[in-house]
Amino acid sequence: MHEQIWPYVTPGIPDDLFERLPGIPMSKCEVRLLMIAHLRLLPNSVLWDIGAGTGTIPVETGLMCPNGRIVAIERDEDVVELIGRNCQKFGVKNVEIVVGSAPECLSTLDHTPDRVCIEGGRSIKDILQHVWERLPLKGRVVATASTLEGLYGISESFAELHVRNIEVVQSAVNRLETRGNRQTFAAVNPMFILSGEKLE
Amino acid sequence: MHEQIWPYVTPGIPDDLFERLPGIPMSKCEVRLLMIAHLRLLPNSVLWDIGAGTGTIPVETGLMCPNGRIVAIERDEDVVELIGRNCQKFGVKNVEIVVGSAPECLSTLDHTPDRVCIEGGRSIKDILQHVWERLPLKGRVVATASTLEGLYGISESFAELHVRNIEVVQSAVNRLETRGNRQTFAAVNPMFILSGEKLE
Amino acid sequence: MHEQIWPYVTPGIPDDLFERLPGIPMSKCEVRLLMIAHLRLLPNSVLWDIGAGTGTIPVETGLMCPNGRIVAIERDEDVVELIGRNCQKFGVKNVEIVVGSAPECLSTLDHTPDRVCIEGGRSIKDILQHVWERLPLKGRVVATASTLEGLYGISESFAELHVRNIEVVQSAVNRLETRGNRQTFAAVNPMFILSGEKLE
Amino acid sequence: MHEQIWPYVTPGIPDDLFERLPGIPMSKCEVRLLMIAHLRLLPNSVLWDIGAGTGTIPVETGLMCPNGRIVAIERDEDVVELIGRNCQKFGVKNVEIVVGSAPECLSTLDHTPDRVCIEGGRSIKDILQHVWERLPLKGRVVATASTLEGLYGISESFAELHVRNIEVVQSAVNRLETRGNRQTFAAVNPMFILSGEKLE
Repeated sequence: MHEQIWPYVTPGIPDDLFERLPGIPMSKCEVRLLMIAHLRLLPNSVLWDIGAGTGTIPVETGLMCPNGRIVAIERDEDVVELIGRNCQKFGVKNVEIVVGSAPECLSTLDHTPDRVCIEGGRSIKDILQHVWERLPLKGRVVATASTLEGLYGISESFAELHVRNIEVVQSAVNRLETRGNRQTFAAVNPMFILSGEKLE
Repeated sequence: MHEQIWPYVTPGIPDDLFERLPGIPMSKCEVRLLMIAHLRLLPNSVLWDIGAGTGTIPVETGLMCPNGRIVAIERDEDVVELIGRNCQKFGVKNVEIVVGSAPECLSTLDHTPDRVCIEGGRSIKDILQHVWERLPLKGRVVATASTLEGLYGISESFAELHVRNIEVVQSAVNRLETRGNRQTFAAVNPMFILSGEKLE
Repeated sequence: MHEQIWPYVTPGIPDDLFERLPGIPMSKCEVRLLMIAHLRLLPNSVLWDIGAGTGTIPVETGLMCPNGRIVAIERDEDVVELIGRNCQKFGVKNVEIVVGSAPECLSTLDHTPDRVCIEGGRSIKDILQHVWERLPLKGRVVATASTLEGLYGISESFAELHVRNIEVVQSAVNRLETRGNRQTFAAVNPMFILSGEKLE
Repeated sequence: MHEQIWPYVTPGIPDDLFERLPGIPMSKCEVRLLMIAHLRLLPNSVLWDIGAGTGTIPVETGLMCPNGRIVAIERDEDVVELIGRNCQKFGVKNVEIVVGSAPECLSTLDHTPDRVCIEGGRSIKDILQHVWERLPLKGRVVATASTLEGLYGISESFAELHVRNIEVVQSAVNRLETRGNRQTFAAVNPMFILSGEKLE
């Protein structure tokens, strides 16, 4: 049997280990760590990852929850293939990839999610509305925003849906990066991570 | 059997779930996530945590590596008790707490470490020198610095010891916190996290 | 003639040179620099500073625009005295202090403002509405927010009022500070600074 | 007489108002504000700007100190021309541009500097050594670093030269920027700004 590319029990796979496509968004390692932490996964959690992009969240969570089930939702067919290739590269077998556009496609999904991660999507309010209806008690939702509009939309929806134990963090990490022959501090673009749970 | 306080497979335990003592340093949740990620723990890793403070790293890593072994090293007896109470609170059973001052006490430790986390200690260079001698090939070391002196000391030692695949990140997270009746963005104080591995 | 406390032509007076009162907000030096920059003051500008707090903006702008006129608006009488003491300490003579609550008190102000700085105030939308009516063409407004609600309120008002050339920056400075006998990196709490101008 | 491009008394000229050349470094607006603040210019200060690059510091300080004198030192002839064009664009007439490599060229400079800004240069320690010999009492020096090596070099030199009232700040600003049809928070790369003065 060949060696695993990520044999570790800890998350935080370096960005450059993932296969990438130009223009396809990827949750950077440091932001991903905060998303995963706020998901608070149980060993057998069912996770929906909406707007899965490069597939870093499915790969990391698939590895951490071998007895869980991850549903990666992505509308772009090329990107769907990319997610598949990244799952294969890391030997992740419990990710189901759904080609579709949220929120419409969500009603076709069989399993009720315990956790929902929203990495993208045009109509964040509609998506959150649908997600909230499907989410069971004690379910958790994590959503990211890099824009003011996204931050507003998620925050307003959370309030309207009576999401509980809301947490908002803004990631702002600097990395020492090699540029030419110098090691320069470079900022990873800031990202807001909003999370909360359903309690009633 | 009573319910576990942290039943999740993901790290990132909120700061306020830990028992604390005034004046005793604690690695904040967002910084801890970066430390854990850079440790890259294997299921059976032996981890030394030098300057364990409140014990957040022993608790989180103890939960993630039930078949691993964590050695928490702390010179202050009161703090040692605090680590013990936090391990008990979270039901962590694979943490051995050593009362002692690094680097002197390190030579008394039986098990060779696969991973070393350095959260504190006066003479960071001496500690790193001792750690490096004990670390096997493919071993990893992670150290944090909140001061310029710490950043210099670790960085210089890493260069002198020929630490490989060095990574330096600076965590700078903002949290939306409730202060009075307002929700204000508050900065978690920045921390440098340096890591690398032994390859020859 | 006695020596001036701040003889420099450049802004950025250190925080600890100002007299302070416990609980009274103060725009920190690094945030103040961004506010002043976005005000883009002319030598003879009339500036309204709404929610002047400790009076750092009146002092700095008063020094930079000796031929300008600064109206500092503050509802709390104790704080009004503090602003006065800080103006006196720095030898600033072109600051008029108005005791009153915005937006109500704004209609009593004689001079049309060229620039408006909004550092506080309960009803940010009402304040911006009133300010916008008084602001002449080419006038500029700068407002700060430390909360999500503030950020939303200002951003929405700017859109409704058709504020032009809107800029949003978030300040997130770390300072090396002496704590005990160590020099530690400490974060200045983040602040959003929104600015724009009236062009039609 | 034609209209001035920057008629304001406040610093903080937007980056895109400067003429630029590909690959030539430019101190970004928010970093520049911190540098200018720490320079603490007097109306008639003589400022050396070493490694002037795009010339943003000469332009801003030239405008703020019409009775001062700015000496911009730059080794690359193409860059020297760029500085000249930017001074002309902003109508700045009190900037003298010196083609030369620091520290060698510093001994050829006639005027003793009251303030020295170090934006670049290979051998930061040699430059600081020369600068310190020329600097009179009450003189101030400001230096920037984007790398660990730069941060170390400046910090060590400051200690060796007994620089007083040392301040270290790290700028970390996020801007809301238009990318495609979205407004995204983008980080300005972090920069360390170190400053201090000569008191004995």
